Amino acid sequence: VQKNLLVAHGGGPTAVINASLAGVIGEARRSGDVDRILAARHGIEGLLRGEVIDLTGLGDADLERLARTPGSAIGSCRYRVAEQDHPRIARALEELGAGFFFYNGGNDSMDTCARVAALDTDARIVGIPKTIDNDLARTDHCPGFGSAARYYAVSAAELALDVRALPIHVVVLETMGRNAGWLAASCALAREIEGLDPEMILLPERPFDEEAFLEAVRRHWERGRGFVIAASEGVAGADGRPLVESTHAAGVDGFGHRLPGGVGQYLADLITERLDIRARAEKPGLLGRVSQLLASEVDRREALEVGRAAARAAAEGMSGVMVALQRVSSEPYSSRTVLVPLDEVANVERRMPDRYIRADGLGVEAEFLDYVRPLVGGELPQPRLIW
Amino acid sequence: VQKNLLVAHGGGPTAVINASLAGVIGEARRSGDVDRILAARHGIEGLLRGEVIDLTGLGDADLERLARTPGSAIGSCRYRVAEQDHPRIARALEELGAGFFFYNGGNDSMDTCARVAALDTDARIVGIPKTIDNDLARTDHCPGFGSAARYYAVSAAELALDVRALPIHVVVLETMGRNAGWLAASCALAREIEGLDPEMILLPERPFDEEAFLEAVRRHWERGRGFVIAASEGVAGADGRPLVESTHAAGVDGFGHRLPGGVGQYLADLITERLDIRARAEKPGLLGRVSQLLASEVDRREALEVGRAAARAAAEGMSGVMVALQRVSSEPYSSRTVLVPLDEVANVERRMPDRYIRADGLGVEAEFLDYVRPLVGGELPQPRLIW
Repeated sequence: VQKNLLVAHGGGPTAVINASLAGVIGEARRSGDVDRILAARHGIEGLLRGEVIDLTGLGDADLERLARTPGSAIGSCRYRVAEQDHPRIARALEELGAGFFFYNGGNDSMDTCARVAALDTDARIVGIPKTIDNDLARTDHCPGFGSAARYYAVSAAELALDVRALPIHVVVLETMGRNAGWLAASCALAREIEGLDPEMILLPERPFDEEAFLEAVRRHWERGRGFVIAASEGVAGADGRPLVESTHAAGVDGFGHRLPGGVGQYLADLITERLDIRARAEKPGLLGRVSQLLASEVDRREALEVGRAAARAAAEGMSGVMVALQRVSSEPYSSRTVLVPLDEVANVERRMPDRYIRADGLGVEAEFLDYVRPLVGGELPQPRLIW
Repeated sequence: VQKNLLVAHGGGPTAVINASLAGVIGEARRSGDVDRILAARHGIEGLLRGEVIDLTGLGDADLERLARTPGSAIGSCRYRVAEQDHPRIARALEELGAGFFFYNGGNDSMDTCARVAALDTDARIVGIPKTIDNDLARTDHCPGFGSAARYYAVSAAELALDVRALPIHVVVLETMGRNAGWLAASCALAREIEGLDPEMILLPERPFDEEAFLEAVRRHWERGRGFVIAASEGVAGADGRPLVESTHAAGVDGFGHRLPGGVGQYLADLITERLDIRARAEKPGLLGRVSQLLASEVDRREALEVGRAAARAAAEGMSGVMVALQRVSSEPYSSRTVLVPLDEVANVERRMPDRYIRADGLGVEAEFLDYVRPLVGGELPQPRLIW
């Protein structure tokens, strides 16, 4: 069996994707089973172009720095593997002497990973989960989500403080999350920072009802204080179409997803036009997935651990699986890694279950807070003195 | 002479406005010259409504928490004082026994402060500077600016890392700054984080030239790597009108300013439509002025100090002045407080001087980096390991 290791990233980076990379490399170095540690630059697309770098020489200090590097240190891609790519991928693995192949990504990338696992190759193929959207199946949660959730919860709380400082108005905070509302929902954690949570949370799991929304805004407004609304970028109408779509043809990525943008501004304008209430929108966008100061240490530790577990699984002969996280206990929080078949994860989207969503569709239940609280990595910064 | 102190905030909060409040209160307590420490809720507007709270009882620990509280702990307002308000303000000061009146704000608020100083009252009136926009005259810089500058510099660097991770595209980072480009310009500090600065910076000080802009984007694009563009929300065309104006009538604040919004998305759409280059925009908006984790400790210390200096000046009999910051040295950095006449500050906007702006109008000179570097409070977080 060949003894080189090959690792690559697919999809958007998270705050902790490089921690998983550090985990894979560190475990492989420790085990001594691996000769060379190789990485494809820019994911499977880079592999097809022959862009491979050698990371064998990295030391412990490098890996510690790597685990705190924003973005993706080896690059990533948004490329859907096609049938005609299959033989080229098999040949690349062969030529690189890759006995172990690790692909880190979300449900699109697990499709890539499953395709590679189905090739006629001796390499052991293991998927490593990652997505701020938290929409992978068969795992309690996804590395990357806890950090982005922390970012949005703190941001919602800080915006709520800003809103309270000035004559009343409304701020819409647009969050990432194309098809699943996990991140918008996480803004509700701001409730635990002196009740600074959004008054409303709009999720893609519930169709947007303009009149009901405006009525709710009007009702909150009459209480005489400014407030925050969290809205997922993927909020859609009853017909399933996003409220706002990019105006341009290029607004479609390699997987054919439409890229929504500006739903926050759309809602702010709607509030102002229909209710004559001053409103503005903020869209930190990619900042929510790249910020290191707001990353969750629990998330970083788990990201490291899923990388290590992937390397261990491959060393033990497993292939065609993804490492998943299983929650052992919420309080005190603990989790463990398990292995799940890749084809149960590939292309499956896990949206928020009904029990987490408030009956009016404009908020979340306490059970969701219990779910997300441990993932954001300890207490949120408490604001302090306000009259 | 009356011995109560009255303090209030005008305009948008900054990350450190409450530090100035803590400075005023701490110095007044220390001096023993003051009987009661009062604050108007929601600025001069709240004073006119009689919304006054008593903060005399605050202890040292309270003041330390206060100095790290986001938003404005006593609220603020956007209200332009009119002639008919003058007698009511004078009466309010008299009734509250206010021998000292401090108003913390930007150039609009210094207009308010100058009006109060011109009233027939025994109270000593001192302005405390504050604005993330950094556009006050007669001061080297404004408390609040350094923190927002740090926020945008770090955000630009993190976005640049995210952009580099994926197949090439362009990200526009929209910054605050309606009439002055100081904050957009501060994104250039990301250059000192391993060269992660925006390739282009659009400032309100230079008219937007669509063709020149697109040509520059195309040229950078051809180098084969994604990049970041920083754009001030107030970018305007040759006719002086903002590229993007709020679509709604309510998009005008109490001072008659138009509230621009969405210039980042506008530019991203323009790039995609005209050049067929994939582009997206991020607009963290108010998050840039409220974030505590990204606040500058130099800024916080100076905000505290201008509050103390205001209290000292009033105790020494000064009135009709604003505390300003004078730079003593850039390296090592030191500054001192001085007093300037309120009417030299009121309603004056200080835009970026020509010498700070690159000849092509799409970036800044090294001299600006020397100006802004010490204000952001020490080294910026360095990203770590990227291939």
